[in-house]
Amino acid sequence: MASFSSIPARELAAYKKELDAQYAAVKAQGLKLDMSRGKPSADQLDLSLGMMDCLTSSDLMKTSAGDDVRNYGMLEGIPEARELFAGLLGVRPSEVIVGGNSSLNLMYDCVARAMQFGTAPNEAPWNRQGKLKFLCPVPGYDRHFGITETFGFEMINIPMTPTGPDMDMVEKLVSSDPSVKGIWCVPKYSNPDGITYSDETVRRFAALKPAARDFRIFWDNAYCIHDITDTPDTLLNIMDECRKQGTEDMLYLFVSTSKISFSGAGVAAMAMSERNLAWAKKFLSMQIISYDKVNQLRHVRFFKDLDGFKAQMEKHRALIKPRFELVLGMLEKELGGLGIAEWTRPNGGYFFSLNVMPGCAKRVVALCKEAGVTLTGAGASFPYGYDPADSNIRIAPTYPSLEDLKKASEVLCLSVKLAAAEKLLAEQAA
Amino acid sequence: MASFSSIPARELAAYKKELDAQYAAVKAQGLKLDMSRGKPSADQLDLSLGMMDCLTSSDLMKTSAGDDVRNYGMLEGIPEARELFAGLLGVRPSEVIVGGNSSLNLMYDCVARAMQFGTAPNEAPWNRQGKLKFLCPVPGYDRHFGITETFGFEMINIPMTPTGPDMDMVEKLVSSDPSVKGIWCVPKYSNPDGITYSDETVRRFAALKPAARDFRIFWDNAYCIHDITDTPDTLLNIMDECRKQGTEDMLYLFVSTSKISFSGAGVAAMAMSERNLAWAKKFLSMQIISYDKVNQLRHVRFFKDLDGFKAQMEKHRALIKPRFELVLGMLEKELGGLGIAEWTRPNGGYFFSLNVMPGCAKRVVALCKEAGVTLTGAGASFPYGYDPADSNIRIAPTYPSLEDLKKASEVLCLSVKLAAAEKLLAEQAA
Repeated sequence: MASFSSIPARELAAYKKELDAQYAAVKAQGLKLDMSRGKPSADQLDLSLGMMDCLTSSDLMKTSAGDDVRNYGMLEGIPEARELFAGLLGVRPSEVIVGGNSSLNLMYDCVARAMQFGTAPNEAPWNRQGKLKFLCPVPGYDRHFGITETFGFEMINIPMTPTGPDMDMVEKLVSSDPSVKGIWCVPKYSNPDGITYSDETVRRFAALKPAARDFRIFWDNAYCIHDITDTPDTLLNIMDECRKQGTEDMLYLFVSTSKISFSGAGVAAMAMSERNLAWAKKFLSMQIISYDKVNQLRHVRFFKDLDGFKAQMEKHRALIKPRFELVLGMLEKELGGLGIAEWTRPNGGYFFSLNVMPGCAKRVVALCKEAGVTLTGAGASFPYGYDPADSNIRIAPTYPSLEDLKKASEVLCLSVKLAAAEKLLAEQAA
Repeated sequence: MASFSSIPARELAAYKKELDAQYAAVKAQGLKLDMSRGKPSADQLDLSLGMMDCLTSSDLMKTSAGDDVRNYGMLEGIPEARELFAGLLGVRPSEVIVGGNSSLNLMYDCVARAMQFGTAPNEAPWNRQGKLKFLCPVPGYDRHFGITETFGFEMINIPMTPTGPDMDMVEKLVSSDPSVKGIWCVPKYSNPDGITYSDETVRRFAALKPAARDFRIFWDNAYCIHDITDTPDTLLNIMDECRKQGTEDMLYLFVSTSKISFSGAGVAAMAMSERNLAWAKKFLSMQIISYDKVNQLRHVRFFKDLDGFKAQMEKHRALIKPRFELVLGMLEKELGGLGIAEWTRPNGGYFFSLNVMPGCAKRVVALCKEAGVTLTGAGASFPYGYDPADSNIRIAPTYPSLEDLKKASEVLCLSVKLAAAEKLLAEQAA
């Protein structure tokens, strides 16, 4: 089929009637499908079932140093877990705190600590520095933006490019405005675009010269080993680059096994310079005696090392790849060449971006909803839930079965066409 | 032996020389014993080893409602865990949030949320209300005081009585001073005295009429079912009393299985009125997607119900009781009638208070340390680590073996006598 915009008005009206009929038929099926969140499927969770058997009453529940993981102590996490996560984070074990099940909670706590107590002994709490700003590459992760919105930051949209956030804009804002205190980054297979920052982007991050000494990069490497295709992306090690520049204190790193083992019962970790870590521990030691070290040991015993993580990700890949291919293939087949939508084709991660005609994203999501397919809300990937172009839709293909995904994709493609036809007809009428 | 104060000066000097000789002999043994923290012993942790086998790869990992505990979701905790903890907390399941492994973290978060966002939609954040005060029954739990010190509260000592905190003082301060925002309570088998609040004390708490609408009682029922003797204490249900008074919003309740299952890998829970819970969830939902529900299910499967918890506590009791009896018996035998020390004899919990002669607590702890026995630091049970009388020492008998405990108690008794002799001789010399 030709591009929508080349269709004459009369034909378009007739075509829309066809689409309406198709939509009515789909709606009559009474579907109930959910493509809204980046949740692993039950099949993926089953891949880690062995974790439930690798630490039993007959196993030694001690660290390699002989400490009982069941008791209090070891705020930073057990040594073998610190080492394991250091590998995943690309830092030294002494720079790692292994936490509970949620990296989001570690990020929230870092922001909360900076608000209340500041980022370093000689820095004022963010709470006492007036109205502050946070940079938000868009589209991005809604829960990141939720944290900075909750704490009252003015969030500034930074456009994503194929090589990462618009670094000209980042450098300008960070170097000129001391009220800019941080930036959210998902540097590999970004949520939702699936973009991996280029080496140059990483180097430019490490070389930032912030106007605020207490500026921090929140480097959420949630998808660090989450490849889908045979041509995986590689990400430069930002801590190494920061060390070269002497900017290690600018960096907070986060990772978790939420999408490696169990999304609700994995292990999260954060890393930062030893100076930053000492300051964080001053408050963390008031907050908690220790995180769940039994679950840390369970993960160490099950995955053993970085290769163990990677072998597990191969299994995830086998389940995720066909899902991405199905949805992307359907988009190509149904929407390719129509000029009414574009989408990313990531080599990894949990999402891709579907960008429909400006002003149509909300309508597409509403149409899908009405036909029984729940998508992530339009605008969710933008601060304050507001997509200025009303164009971006985050697609999360991992959770539904292939069968459900096929049906959901059909509804999605139909809705995209319908919304575009509505828009073009309205424009022609105006 | 007669009271120390009745010993003539010359005899006392000679007696002290005896004590010095005994102390030198003990010191020469090169002991290395730790009675500093309320940690369960390895034997106690072994009681819950079955928990490692009750949720394996062959078990259904779903809630009774059919939801997969391995995935994201259920911020409030799984329904069966909410019900289980509601029983422990004496509240409705709808008033419970089941958290991660740390009740301290839930408390810290409650304070942090109130600081940053206030306690209710119409209340100003505590951060914006100037210098604030927190009431601290003393002696009390050092980690409680650590939180309020970290957040910059002026902490006001409230003397403990055999029926709980001095309620005349509490009522006066709470009703007259709007800058008083909270009070720390360990209402059953208090840390460190082991005192249980009387029914009247609980009723007076529920009937408080705070000058500050955003005043909160932090009711940390850490030892709710932790009986030691055959004559356990009972605690009135404060939520029931608050409901009668219409003061439910004044109350935050906390509990955990840290001293029921594994101290580092148990499950914590908090409870509050549904109004308070809705407000807390507004921020909690920004902080974390869900706590570790696999561990919640593991606990539910292992303990089943309140009776399961209680049966487990009978087993703990069998291990803890002889330890308390040993130390208390030694104190009675070595220090009874000397007039140089008093101590509490709790029916449950993890601690008791040893009150030595005023001005002697630090010296006793230092003498023990020098002889290889680590006690909780003198003053630790007071805000800012400052015991005005320098008299209170928290005794934690659960962790060491009976053999170690015997040696440690000998050193302790000797140190108490030596410090008293030093003090009396110094007074006689002056």
